[in-house]
Amino acid sequence: MTIAAASSSPPPKGDLRRFSNEAWETVARTLSERLGARFQIGDSVREQHGHTTTWIPNQPPDGVAFAASTDEVAFIVRTCAAHDVPVIPFGVGTSLEGHVNAPEGGVSVDLSHMNQVLAINAHDFDCVVQPGVTRKQLNVLLRDQGLFFPIDPGADATLGGMAATRASGTNAVRYGTMKNMIISVEAVLPNGSIVRTGQRARKSSAGYDLTSLLIGSEGTLGIITELTVRLFGIPEAVGSVAASFGTIAEAAEAVIATMQYGVPVARIELLDPLTVRAMNDYSNLNFDEAPLLLVEFHGSETAVAEHQELFKAIVEDHGGNTVPSANSPEERTRIWQARHDAYWASLTLRPGAKGLSTDICVPISQLAACIGKAQKRAEDEGFIAPIVGHVGDGNFHVLPLIDMDNEDEIKRARSYVGWLNEMAIEAGGTCTGEHGIGQGKSAYLRRELGDAVDVMGAIKQALDPQNIMNPGKVLPA
Amino acid sequence: MTIAAASSSPPPKGDLRRFSNEAWETVARTLSERLGARFQIGDSVREQHGHTTTWIPNQPPDGVAFAASTDEVAFIVRTCAAHDVPVIPFGVGTSLEGHVNAPEGGVSVDLSHMNQVLAINAHDFDCVVQPGVTRKQLNVLLRDQGLFFPIDPGADATLGGMAATRASGTNAVRYGTMKNMIISVEAVLPNGSIVRTGQRARKSSAGYDLTSLLIGSEGTLGIITELTVRLFGIPEAVGSVAASFGTIAEAAEAVIATMQYGVPVARIELLDPLTVRAMNDYSNLNFDEAPLLLVEFHGSETAVAEHQELFKAIVEDHGGNTVPSANSPEERTRIWQARHDAYWASLTLRPGAKGLSTDICVPISQLAACIGKAQKRAEDEGFIAPIVGHVGDGNFHVLPLIDMDNEDEIKRARSYVGWLNEMAIEAGGTCTGEHGIGQGKSAYLRRELGDAVDVMGAIKQALDPQNIMNPGKVLPA
Repeated sequence: MTIAAASSSPPPKGDLRRFSNEAWETVARTLSERLGARFQIGDSVREQHGHTTTWIPNQPPDGVAFAASTDEVAFIVRTCAAHDVPVIPFGVGTSLEGHVNAPEGGVSVDLSHMNQVLAINAHDFDCVVQPGVTRKQLNVLLRDQGLFFPIDPGADATLGGMAATRASGTNAVRYGTMKNMIISVEAVLPNGSIVRTGQRARKSSAGYDLTSLLIGSEGTLGIITELTVRLFGIPEAVGSVAASFGTIAEAAEAVIATMQYGVPVARIELLDPLTVRAMNDYSNLNFDEAPLLLVEFHGSETAVAEHQELFKAIVEDHGGNTVPSANSPEERTRIWQARHDAYWASLTLRPGAKGLSTDICVPISQLAACIGKAQKRAEDEGFIAPIVGHVGDGNFHVLPLIDMDNEDEIKRARSYVGWLNEMAIEAGGTCTGEHGIGQGKSAYLRRELGDAVDVMGAIKQALDPQNIMNPGKVLPA
Repeated sequence: MTIAAASSSPPPKGDLRRFSNEAWETVARTLSERLGARFQIGDSVREQHGHTTTWIPNQPPDGVAFAASTDEVAFIVRTCAAHDVPVIPFGVGTSLEGHVNAPEGGVSVDLSHMNQVLAINAHDFDCVVQPGVTRKQLNVLLRDQGLFFPIDPGADATLGGMAATRASGTNAVRYGTMKNMIISVEAVLPNGSIVRTGQRARKSSAGYDLTSLLIGSEGTLGIITELTVRLFGIPEAVGSVAASFGTIAEAAEAVIATMQYGVPVARIELLDPLTVRAMNDYSNLNFDEAPLLLVEFHGSETAVAEHQELFKAIVEDHGGNTVPSANSPEERTRIWQARHDAYWASLTLRPGAKGLSTDICVPISQLAACIGKAQKRAEDEGFIAPIVGHVGDGNFHVLPLIDMDNEDEIKRARSYVGWLNEMAIEAGGTCTGEHGIGQGKSAYLRRELGDAVDVMGAIKQALDPQNIMNPGKVLPA
């Protein structure tokens, strides 16, 4: 692309594009000069960098900059800031709340080219990676050293994106979330400066925890350009148990008992009968169409065997039935793959419909009641709304399947999601356990956190007075 | 105390008391009216609320307010802010870096009267406490429910203070630090507003992580008035192993191997020969005067037995000798009590001397080298400087014992501590693993974190433009 090409054909603007064509032409020319073909303004690349994963409408950026280094990210940020052009960080675009949309226009900073693993410190159980490294890519590299990175949000997301949204997934119950997994980050701030939030020690009490502040800030306070993350030894043994229950309440009680006895589950996933039916069809399995718990254990052979027996006893106490075959290695792989494909499987329950991803998380004592209410109201509305949950953490996803051509249905679905979020907050929980706020949930932030939102606003104002970094996300307008 | 008494006898001021006598009289009168006898200005109570635990000189506040509720804390903060009088939160005063000193004068807000456990949610493995609850007090209450709160910094500190300094201690290697243990906090901000940083769900991706921002902010951004903390089931079995080694390097290698094999130690503590000698005398034990590892395991009977055997094999591989008797319950209690008393035991190595508490934390691959250098230089200086370490985290404390009447020795000791901090930073570590920055280490913050310190400064400025909250701590002047 030549400079002329960049400026002669101004791209379609976002709904509220906040800068002039002249400003954009200057930014586009400057970025083209520095990045060459790694700065792009074609329609398809722009649209691909708007949000497409779920039901939120696509708001493409004006251009996409494929950054190759931290210095380039800083250059892009400084260039954009000088002309009041927003910057929106982008990993692989698997986020679920419109995080990568450009409602005010601007430049999407695609970090997928920054995908080097810079150091693996096996003795220290950490590694240093660029933000575009994906979790699967990292785990392939680590395998030979007997190490792994445990956070698994399902999608093969980038570590930068997972950090930015404070992601977690199926095994957070054992290993924690991205919040617990990151030792420090390097980030480019809204003023273009580059900071590192910590050294490589496993713990520190040195000053404010800027690492945690950037994790989950969804690109609104800075762009993460490097991460030092914790690693774990690959467990000697892995074991699985699958168990069906008569009711969601019985399954939830079994989860509480498992946590209460301190059984160290690595994963404990609940699937409702709808999801089980979809998964059976999609992945050729034949579980009973009943509430299902899929549980995994990591440890020594002895420990895994002991914990499996303990869990089976808990299942029996709660009226459940364990599925005998679930523990063969092949079957285990097949089942967990099916679990990861549950989203896609669920979409087949209503072909052509879109899934509205929800993400509430409640104290586990409230789990059975909250799932029950969510199911009941979905039924009352006539929604097909399968449910899966990382229930050891109290986190579950209801996925109403909605006809996006039916205005009334969309309206009722929005109302349902709003009610669901408020119900979780009422129960002492959160509207988002792991997806983040993005565009989709900023309306619920104050309901959940009250005046703490003003503190967030003050921090945003202090670090990004221009509101250049991913505007329209996290904080309510 | 009457109002007249408060204002008629202005207390001695700090070195840089920044407000007028008139301002102080107004503040003292207002606080007396609201708090009655719970506002005090006597010399002994003021001195007791300055810093006394280690070598940092005592800088007493002008008055001490014993707050009984969050609203009272907010009232105190607003009253002080209106007259530019600093507020300094106080728990039980066991911090080690001058955190409770009042270098610019002001009011110490003593939170020890706010010591109620407000809720124990056994099913959710959490509880809600006021900041003045101490860890021992909490664990006594929890015992009947089969639960415990694991963070153990040695001293019977308050949970508010432990949160404010991001404390940890012996079993952080298994359970994490205060950072990992706190679900949310309520805090009074510098402007007197009261915010809650989160709900009670075990994880959340809702907005900026203000919980983590307040944890470790050492009272410079707000006063924590309530905490929701995670709890754990009391392990079915506890086992211990003690092992002596020929050299620190061999012991450190054994630690690395233990972590590498994924042996889930609950505690893994290193004591150098000097500390072992002191501990033998002080606590009537008879370990070899050699590098010693004290290790504890939590889990089921089977798991603990398995892990003990695994660890013993690692000890043998690294030329160490396990001490046979260390696993009887009585002996175990006696040994761990001795470990907790190691600070006091060490002081007996040089009667009359003060201990300079240091707190570096390095990647564990650097542990042996860093301990070796620290020992060597202490020897070169002629210091008696025992060492204990939470080595699973790479955190160790060198405690040079210094004659505080000897100017030259103090000067050399300061120089040693500075060198030690820089050595840790050079090795990829931190100058403070768990004690915090306080007054004592703010000079090393920029060396460790570079321009990230400016981000901290911007946040401090945004939330506390008057610098009313614990001035002179954390951020360099």
